[in-house]
Amino acid sequence: MTLTRRYRFSSSHRLHSPQLNDEENQQVYGKCNNPYGHGHDYVLDVSVSGKLDAATGRIVDLDTLDQVVGNHIVNCFEHRNLNADIPAFQSMVPTTENVAVEIGRRLTEAWPDAFGNTGTLLKKIRIRETPRNIFELTL
Amino acid sequence: MTLTRRYRFSSSHRLHSPQLNDEENQQVYGKCNNPYGHGHDYVLDVSVSGKLDAATGRIVDLDTLDQVVGNHIVNCFEHRNLNADIPAFQSMVPTTENVAVEIGRRLTEAWPDAFGNTGTLLKKIRIRETPRNIFELTL
Amino acid sequence: MTLTRRYRFSSSHRLHSPQLNDEENQQVYGKCNNPYGHGHDYVLDVSVSGKLDAATGRIVDLDTLDQVVGNHIVNCFEHRNLNADIPAFQSMVPTTENVAVEIGRRLTEAWPDAFGNTGTLLKKIRIRETPRNIFELTL
Amino acid sequence: MTLTRRYRFSSSHRLHSPQLNDEENQQVYGKCNNPYGHGHDYVLDVSVSGKLDAATGRIVDLDTLDQVVGNHIVNCFEHRNLNADIPAFQSMVPTTENVAVEIGRRLTEAWPDAFGNTGTLLKKIRIRETPRNIFELTL
Amino acid sequence: MTLTRRYRFSSSHRLHSPQLNDEENQQVYGKCNNPYGHGHDYVLDVSVSGKLDAATGRIVDLDTLDQVVGNHIVNCFEHRNLNADIPAFQSMVPTTENVAVEIGRRLTEAWPDAFGNTGTLLKKIRIRETPRNIFELTL
Amino acid sequence: MTLTRRYRFSSSHRLHSPQLNDEENQQVYGKCNNPYGHGHDYVLDVSVSGKLDAATGRIVDLDTLDQVVGNHIVNCFEHRNLNADIPAFQSMVPTTENVAVEIGRRLTEAWPDAFGNTGTLLKKIRIRETPRNIFELTL
Repeated sequence: MTLTRRYRFSSSHRLHSPQLNDEENQQVYGKCNNPYGHGHDYVLDVSVSGKLDAATGRIVDLDTLDQVVGNHIVNCFEHRNLNADIPAFQSMVPTTENVAVEIGRRLTEAWPDAFGNTGTLLKKIRIRETPRNIFELTL
Repeated sequence: MTLTRRYRFSSSHRLHSPQLNDEENQQVYGKCNNPYGHGHDYVLDVSVSGKLDAATGRIVDLDTLDQVVGNHIVNCFEHRNLNADIPAFQSMVPTTENVAVEIGRRLTEAWPDAFGNTGTLLKKIRIRETPRNIFELTL
Repeated sequence: MTLTRRYRFSSSHRLHSPQLNDEENQQVYGKCNNPYGHGHDYVLDVSVSGKLDAATGRIVDLDTLDQVVGNHIVNCFEHRNLNADIPAFQSMVPTTENVAVEIGRRLTEAWPDAFGNTGTLLKKIRIRETPRNIFELTL
Repeated sequence: MTLTRRYRFSSSHRLHSPQLNDEENQQVYGKCNNPYGHGHDYVLDVSVSGKLDAATGRIVDLDTLDQVVGNHIVNCFEHRNLNADIPAFQSMVPTTENVAVEIGRRLTEAWPDAFGNTGTLLKKIRIRETPRNIFELTL
Repeated sequence: MTLTRRYRFSSSHRLHSPQLNDEENQQVYGKCNNPYGHGHDYVLDVSVSGKLDAATGRIVDLDTLDQVVGNHIVNCFEHRNLNADIPAFQSMVPTTENVAVEIGRRLTEAWPDAFGNTGTLLKKIRIRETPRNIFELTL
Repeated sequence: MTLTRRYRFSSSHRLHSPQLNDEENQQVYGKCNNPYGHGHDYVLDVSVSGKLDAATGRIVDLDTLDQVVGNHIVNCFEHRNLNADIPAFQSMVPTTENVAVEIGRRLTEAWPDAFGNTGTLLKKIRIRETPRNIFELTL
């Protein structure tokens, strides 16, 4: 059984790759390349699986999950500029694909401390950039 | 091909496990352990797969599906108190995980009579407890 | 200008009026009269109006609004049984109409202390019982 | 990683199979068999996977995806009558199952020209006929 | 206090005005003028007001409301072609504006018989043609 | 009769008022005052009223409405930084209240040229900053 739990954060970013020249950046990213950036209300769905505990009827401790996602993702990304405030996006363009990669990296790294011997596994993250664009990363 | 069909029911419950003492119950379930209970508008998505019938262009008979889910789930859970009205929750705490297990058990049991030789298979159920918490059970 | 801010709480209730006999209760409320109750994920929209503050560009202090609605409504109703946990529903059947009346009464009473000389006015509350039933009370 | 991108089109159709007689058509399709047809606001989710391009941080070129889905699906189905305007539904009843099959066939056929050597793969389409009925076809 | 109750129906239509020539029809309605029609999943919100009944805690009898809207609107429009199946649209082009007018006319006409001496008033109808286009008619 | 038509734009902003000192800015705006800004997917609903044209069955020409809102709002705000890209926010802090004021000012100014003698009136704008915060400005 899996639980998908929903989180939200509102951030700004500008898509501009240091590996592309100005014309290529404009061509690849269009208005997402506008110099002063723009922003989104990101919706992050974190899917975990676990063994059903017979006594509690639960597959995951929600408080722990909220702490991990809160400390490592929401509190860092919420109301921030991804390019300026998140170290990983000094060297990586903050497309939602790369945001997914970075979130996956952070959660994977934090998982053992939080859920080490509980059998709760991190399965998938899904990020909705806009209602039309949803990215899914299996972990 | 799969079809996911959506059903809804509004129920109340209290999370309190007989296998835990009062303090543990309070710690595990927090305000979900409040003595007089609370409730949710559950959204149940039932996913089935089937072979496309060349004559009808259908993979499942919707009337039959609605009857099975209606008779065994919605009519029993709708506007009910899970702890008091559903026998399975005499011995099992009605977390949404256990609600999923009970719904899966009921549908699996009813399936052969309803869809015995049609090739329609029950694949997955998904229950949305609140817009933030969604449980998925592959069957 | 008005701001509408959204809150949520999940509660259970049973519709049974002491002014009606059992048969009338069954006829008026149908399955909402089931003896052990049921529940909903209520959505509460609070609409306030105010003068635009030239320095802050705001019409209402959101922290104050969240405190008023939190202390007087959400913290009292969230994960509670309306019949058992809310004094007003000892003598009043907890239909969503009456829930709206009670919420309006509580907010109106708390308003002067919170927003006394700010010019922020309480205009309207709207409660969504289910996605199909929405009640609106102008204050 | 997969991207799911959402498209919409509004079409009308009538469900009436030439392989069934009138009584059977009425029994299988009910009011969907009404002689003058009815319609839906279809929501089409197209899921693709791809390798993350290190320079652009993208897994798929969105302009190309929009062109393929636009030219082969949306522009053909939008504000059309499926029975009268789409050749495939001369011989196939336009149930949403068959609409999914036809969309899958069209996208599969157009894919090599559009995404031939990019590594972008067409994984899945999902069509929401109404908020209660969603069909998914893995490709 | 007002209650807004939601109904749905799926219909097809073609926008073509007998008072305009072919070129004008094409210019005014664009692809909505396509000869074989298209369709929508209409969402109809009916808003009524009423006096709070002290005994029942209700402002309107929901069963009566569902019967009126069911008999006069949903059962007539659901899975129908508006041009062919609804007499009013023989002489009136079935734009959503005119659909609103026709629904308002039907409900106003049926109201006295259903709610004659109850004090329940029909206040407003709102029709969502697509998620982007919503029409509101105060009655 | 009114039509409400929905538009969307994604922008970034930072809330920092030149009329407040740093400490006050931090106190009033909290994390919205973070130095590098953040962003939202704004939803803009524009409500207009008009006389029903007997020949076309329409109350407003949608192409004209889309052009006005497109040219004066969406194309200017979409994928932009409000503080840096919109002149009005040089001297006004871009709270959603002020964004509503600026949108109202722009539409009111553009209205006569677009809808001068048509009887179509601009009634209301509503901006959803996040699903929890909605601002409404009657015009």
